Amino acid sequence: MDVMGPATAPQRPGSKSPSQTEALADPALNGETALPHETVQPAASPTGDPWLLTPGPLTTSPTVKEAMLHDLGSRDKDFIAINRRLRDRLLHIIHGQDSHVCVPLQGSGTFVVEAMLGCFVPKDGKVLILVNGAYGNRMAKICVYNGRSAVVVEWPEGQPVDPSILAERLAADPTITHVAAVHCETTAGILNPIEEIARVTADAGRRLLIDAMSIFGAIELDARRVPFDALVASSNKCLEGAPGIGFCLARQGALEETCGNAPALSLDLYDQWVCMEGNGQWRFTPPTHAILAFDQALTEYEAEGGVAGRSGRYQENLEILLSGMRDLGFDTLLPDDLQAPIIVTFHNPVDPAFVFEEFYDRLRRRGYVIYPGKLTVAESFRIGCIGRLGKTEMEGALAAIRDTLAEMGVKRCHKRRDI
Amino acid sequence: MDVMGPATAPQRPGSKSPSQTEALADPALNGETALPHETVQPAASPTGDPWLLTPGPLTTSPTVKEAMLHDLGSRDKDFIAINRRLRDRLLHIIHGQDSHVCVPLQGSGTFVVEAMLGCFVPKDGKVLILVNGAYGNRMAKICVYNGRSAVVVEWPEGQPVDPSILAERLAADPTITHVAAVHCETTAGILNPIEEIARVTADAGRRLLIDAMSIFGAIELDARRVPFDALVASSNKCLEGAPGIGFCLARQGALEETCGNAPALSLDLYDQWVCMEGNGQWRFTPPTHAILAFDQALTEYEAEGGVAGRSGRYQENLEILLSGMRDLGFDTLLPDDLQAPIIVTFHNPVDPAFVFEEFYDRLRRRGYVIYPGKLTVAESFRIGCIGRLGKTEMEGALAAIRDTLAEMGVKRCHKRRDI
Repeated sequence: MDVMGPATAPQRPGSKSPSQTEALADPALNGETALPHETVQPAASPTGDPWLLTPGPLTTSPTVKEAMLHDLGSRDKDFIAINRRLRDRLLHIIHGQDSHVCVPLQGSGTFVVEAMLGCFVPKDGKVLILVNGAYGNRMAKICVYNGRSAVVVEWPEGQPVDPSILAERLAADPTITHVAAVHCETTAGILNPIEEIARVTADAGRRLLIDAMSIFGAIELDARRVPFDALVASSNKCLEGAPGIGFCLARQGALEETCGNAPALSLDLYDQWVCMEGNGQWRFTPPTHAILAFDQALTEYEAEGGVAGRSGRYQENLEILLSGMRDLGFDTLLPDDLQAPIIVTFHNPVDPAFVFEEFYDRLRRRGYVIYPGKLTVAESFRIGCIGRLGKTEMEGALAAIRDTLAEMGVKRCHKRRDI
Repeated sequence: MDVMGPATAPQRPGSKSPSQTEALADPALNGETALPHETVQPAASPTGDPWLLTPGPLTTSPTVKEAMLHDLGSRDKDFIAINRRLRDRLLHIIHGQDSHVCVPLQGSGTFVVEAMLGCFVPKDGKVLILVNGAYGNRMAKICVYNGRSAVVVEWPEGQPVDPSILAERLAADPTITHVAAVHCETTAGILNPIEEIARVTADAGRRLLIDAMSIFGAIELDARRVPFDALVASSNKCLEGAPGIGFCLARQGALEETCGNAPALSLDLYDQWVCMEGNGQWRFTPPTHAILAFDQALTEYEAEGGVAGRSGRYQENLEILLSGMRDLGFDTLLPDDLQAPIIVTFHNPVDPAFVFEEFYDRLRRRGYVIYPGKLTVAESFRIGCIGRLGKTEMEGALAAIRDTLAEMGVKRCHKRRDI
């Protein structure tokens, strides 16, 4: 399992000459070198892995991972009880226990997004998809696969969805039955105004489907106030479980109407719900270990204070990140009022010494994994602030970034001014 | 996490009076009782969980579970290397490295069965499904969802698929393009003659799709000799990984022909393959922890001697189980020549003192989880012999069964003779 191990090679900032830079990549060549002034120690999580500053999969707590050290039978009554509890807990996060139901689904988040669109938009329906990034576009792609009639209204990646334009489109096209929106679009890291989108959609007598994947549990969303038919998210984002489980929180009446709509047996949320209500079991083999991890993650989420506690930590992480990166000279794509506390897009530095792949690899060896950009309009990279990370890890990441830039000889970190 | 813990209460065989039976369920009431003659100690796996004698999820090794104690980034090069290795290893099991490709898919086994049918049977194709149990029927149900033309030929649950009837059906209906078969149908535990099915299908110029879920890796299947377009299986059956990953081993040319066929984006094996070949990454968030477990499980599989070693252990487990249960008087559904070394269906005992739920619960408290029956024609239960189980565990299960029967007062274990 050596390829899975943490980065153990100490990295040292030093000369910017190419030969020195190459030598630094090989710890064996540096074993006898006296430590320079600014010693960088490789950081690693308690389980020896680099910290993941990404949109997911994320760093989870050691106790969440340890919950996976058990094999449970999928029909066993203890396992059934855990699933019942897990579904109830997820509903409580949105105060939906009196109105909504929870349907978990195997697979990645995209599986449950596709299940939501395929089940909730009937074959004779028409969905208006609000797009300002890759995840909105993915919903449109899903509708082509599933044969659902869809129209798209699109904004640039750095702009939030505009509810007034939504209202205009709904007024202009009475054949639109549903609206689909991404709560936080991680392409840029932008927060969309989901409450206003919900109000406009409800006022127009249409139904709302929400992809809340990347932000669920880290921002208040109260199903008693915000009308929607279905919302989907997953185990491994802000709830800090292991990946492998999506879930749909649906208004019960709306879910009941989806009977017969599903484009695939695997993705049939109605059938999954009916079976679970019947005997408490998943229809098909559940990812038992990931479910145990998710249950433990929810225990830790509640212990942290639920939405308030989790959003508070992520907001603090965000502020450390923004402030530290700006001190280094970096420009963010978004102004702060549009920035969700999930992941931040930074423009690549104008300095030609900056090469993302090298920057990534050097940070990785120091124990911090960041993420490439996803913008279609500018060169960028992303740094996440979710998962089991706090002040220490964010400050550690900033120190590693500072030292890596020095090592690479990157001095001017601002973006190209002609962008 | 108390509901997840192992059964720790010592269970003791004793009086059959209802009050005594109830008392046995509460260890606090028995703490001071002198141990009777036949002491039963609760068995538990090294991680404290009951042994799972089921069709899955199964007991995995401690080292497989410990592999999940690491968080890896999905785009990280170490993770990419693990996935490359994992896909190669799976191909080697069927000697398919020169002809076939491996496409993993998030979700349970059914997800990849559905993906296979939806992708490989084109919209203008027609699939003949060979049914002798629930998994064959599920394939027929999937075709209804996916809008694929399907015809079914069915045998009783206790009979294997008959290749001569397949040949007749193929000769009679030239519009059939594909044949879909279940290698081991765990409804009864029966082994279908997949090599003959493959030969008949190929001789008739049709294409074969195999659901090998429950037996893959525990029986020889050589892609150099056995013609098929696609075969699907999963991480958590005979390969003894954690659940959450399916995979398709497909003839490359056949997979290439599936472009545009998929009924859902999530289930698009062609798209998944193209993306993986391109950058080594999964299209959508992979279950990283389950993948690390799967990689470790394959290391242990190879160390055990691959197909030969794994099938040898399971065959020994099967023989211990059959012999021990027959000694107790139980009747199996199948004659031994049809019995796959995966899971055995036993008829419920004729004795009215036998109540399956009570039998299950008592065995569970002793540390052994068995499985309900799935036959439509007779009352039955099932006991599996796969997963990280050997002679000790199989003999332990038999001892627990013997003592449980005594405790319940079940004396006549043979089936009803009028069945």
